[in-house]
Amino acid sequence: MKEKDERWIPERDPSMGEHTQAGCENRRLEKICSKFLEGTGPEADVVISSRVRLARNIRDHLFPPLASNLQRKNILQLCREILQEEEERFSRFQFLELDSISGVFKQVLVEKHLISPLMARENVCSALCLREDETLGIMINEEDHIHIQCMLPGLQLEQAWQEASLLDDCLENQASYAFHEELGYLTACPTTVGTGLRASVMLHLPALVITRQINRILFALNKVGLVLQGIYGESTDFTGNLFQVSNQITLGQSEDEIWQNLYGVTRQLINQEKKAREHLLNEGRERLDDRSGRALGVMRYARVLGVQEVMQLISDVRLGLDLGLVRDISAGTLNKLLALTQPGCLQYLKGRELSAYEQDLERAAQVQKFLDC
Amino acid sequence: MKEKDERWIPERDPSMGEHTQAGCENRRLEKICSKFLEGTGPEADVVISSRVRLARNIRDHLFPPLASNLQRKNILQLCREILQEEEERFSRFQFLELDSISGVFKQVLVEKHLISPLMARENVCSALCLREDETLGIMINEEDHIHIQCMLPGLQLEQAWQEASLLDDCLENQASYAFHEELGYLTACPTTVGTGLRASVMLHLPALVITRQINRILFALNKVGLVLQGIYGESTDFTGNLFQVSNQITLGQSEDEIWQNLYGVTRQLINQEKKAREHLLNEGRERLDDRSGRALGVMRYARVLGVQEVMQLISDVRLGLDLGLVRDISAGTLNKLLALTQPGCLQYLKGRELSAYEQDLERAAQVQKFLDC
Repeated sequence: MKEKDERWIPERDPSMGEHTQAGCENRRLEKICSKFLEGTGPEADVVISSRVRLARNIRDHLFPPLASNLQRKNILQLCREILQEEEERFSRFQFLELDSISGVFKQVLVEKHLISPLMARENVCSALCLREDETLGIMINEEDHIHIQCMLPGLQLEQAWQEASLLDDCLENQASYAFHEELGYLTACPTTVGTGLRASVMLHLPALVITRQINRILFALNKVGLVLQGIYGESTDFTGNLFQVSNQITLGQSEDEIWQNLYGVTRQLINQEKKAREHLLNEGRERLDDRSGRALGVMRYARVLGVQEVMQLISDVRLGLDLGLVRDISAGTLNKLLALTQPGCLQYLKGRELSAYEQDLERAAQVQKFLDC
Repeated sequence: MKEKDERWIPERDPSMGEHTQAGCENRRLEKICSKFLEGTGPEADVVISSRVRLARNIRDHLFPPLASNLQRKNILQLCREILQEEEERFSRFQFLELDSISGVFKQVLVEKHLISPLMARENVCSALCLREDETLGIMINEEDHIHIQCMLPGLQLEQAWQEASLLDDCLENQASYAFHEELGYLTACPTTVGTGLRASVMLHLPALVITRQINRILFALNKVGLVLQGIYGESTDFTGNLFQVSNQITLGQSEDEIWQNLYGVTRQLINQEKKAREHLLNEGRERLDDRSGRALGVMRYARVLGVQEVMQLISDVRLGLDLGLVRDISAGTLNKLLALTQPGCLQYLKGRELSAYEQDLERAAQVQKFLDC
């Protein structure tokens, strides 16, 4: 495990001369646009990513929300020791204490779904232990002592579950988890008690939105114990036609039942989205072509771009791409654009804080630069 | 004077093979995009064109609205004879009987402001005698027996008046005009009695629209005997930020007073528009840049474009061009696009009638093709 990570360069380096600005920006861009965003993986035209998170706590220690700073520090130390016991396994992991990084970079981690918004805000003695490829990580002192997270591109719930579970087994060898015979794993929030498992998929559902079927689906999902949210956990903001579906229930079902239930429903959603796309194509191919064409035109030529607008534009172009109407652009490019146009990533890229208006200008400039590459 | 004009090819030639389609389209495009649209002339960044029209009638003949078809035919014959008397002067003019051309081509002539919408609708024994460069023409059997029209690019009211007046003198040598010692020239409509002179300028006033000063100006113009209309004579539709300002009064003022009054007011309007542009630039250069950039992006990438939308987009790009924000495009290109995207021109270009939706598709395709040239 690397303590000091060269990849996580500081946002602003006073010794950095003008002539190295471009080089730094390129290195930062590489970090934002991780391999994860290539747009590969099964069902990648609808499923952006699959994620499994396991909540675990160390026996006889207060849960983080109730723990003092000293107690949180002890937990962090304890976790560090557990990881060090398995040094070889964690040789390709990086250990990042959140106290030591800037607000902007925390925001980058949130935007990349590597830490939660809560952890970015309240992070005394919090840490992220993340594998090089960024698909497997451990959050320490979030809501629980340990959140193991595996996030894979496309529809790969089973693989995500297996990877997370393997890491869980390995930690359990060293740590003594808070576990109750009847209830299962004990967690800070009652809704995660039991398996401690939260499985989710991030979906791009433009056709279900355009054809106004999404509200019906939202209602139906609630009935089968699933919840639909925006990609940053908002309950109503589905900017960019991006949705996160996850299980509500963690108790009374086995881990396999949980991810399999989500997997089955996701398969149905994929089918419905594809049918809706087919329908839109048959109803008016030119209208769809126009929609994605205009979006690409605005992305290439606008000088001021808001984050919500760019997410919608990316969605429109992506739909055109998935339907074979748009060429000369890849799903990977669009995924990366979605990442780098977020407020945190943009500011990180420029190496300084930007006002909202400066962000809108910079966003447009970066989009054009990126599309011209 | 040429009776048969090779430049006015029929809209659909059954003998025209597939392989000549592109060639025909190019010839038609040339005809739509006459030299007049090069975007030259004084004050061309605000004044699209200057126009002077003189209404005249032959003594002792009923005005066209009251005349029978036979009487209209006689007038047409009489006018033809008058023109033939001055054969040399009219050697570079073309004579076009409106009965003999298709509805689509009549619409083209209206869109190019070479005939009036009235003349396109009611055209028994009507004719247009037009000089090669399309700046000087005579409409026969419109509302009056003779409408002499001179239209020049940019602000050239004096020149337009002089050219029209010269042609008028020449006709008056041959014809005996209906003239009243006190009232002046007698015309079908009481509002043109007197000088029979209608002078107008076509203006592009985007900054006065954006800064919402246009309503105040509209009100002020009425007070000085001028009227503001859309470019096709509509009283409220100012699509594309295009306005036509003309004199209301033709009686009690000399010809020079009429065009000079319009000229003076036009100069003021130009100043106000330029001040408003300066103000917009100072307030937010990027916003303006964004506006014209987006417009160009949509023009380059849309697949379905309505006529009103394209006029607004052209206006936005033109403003950016005039302010030095947009490059790689000329005023001439935008003027020509404005012409060729009108419904009549589009259908004429394709050589057949198109439904409204087909027009929207064809409009987008032609805009892209033209911008790629």
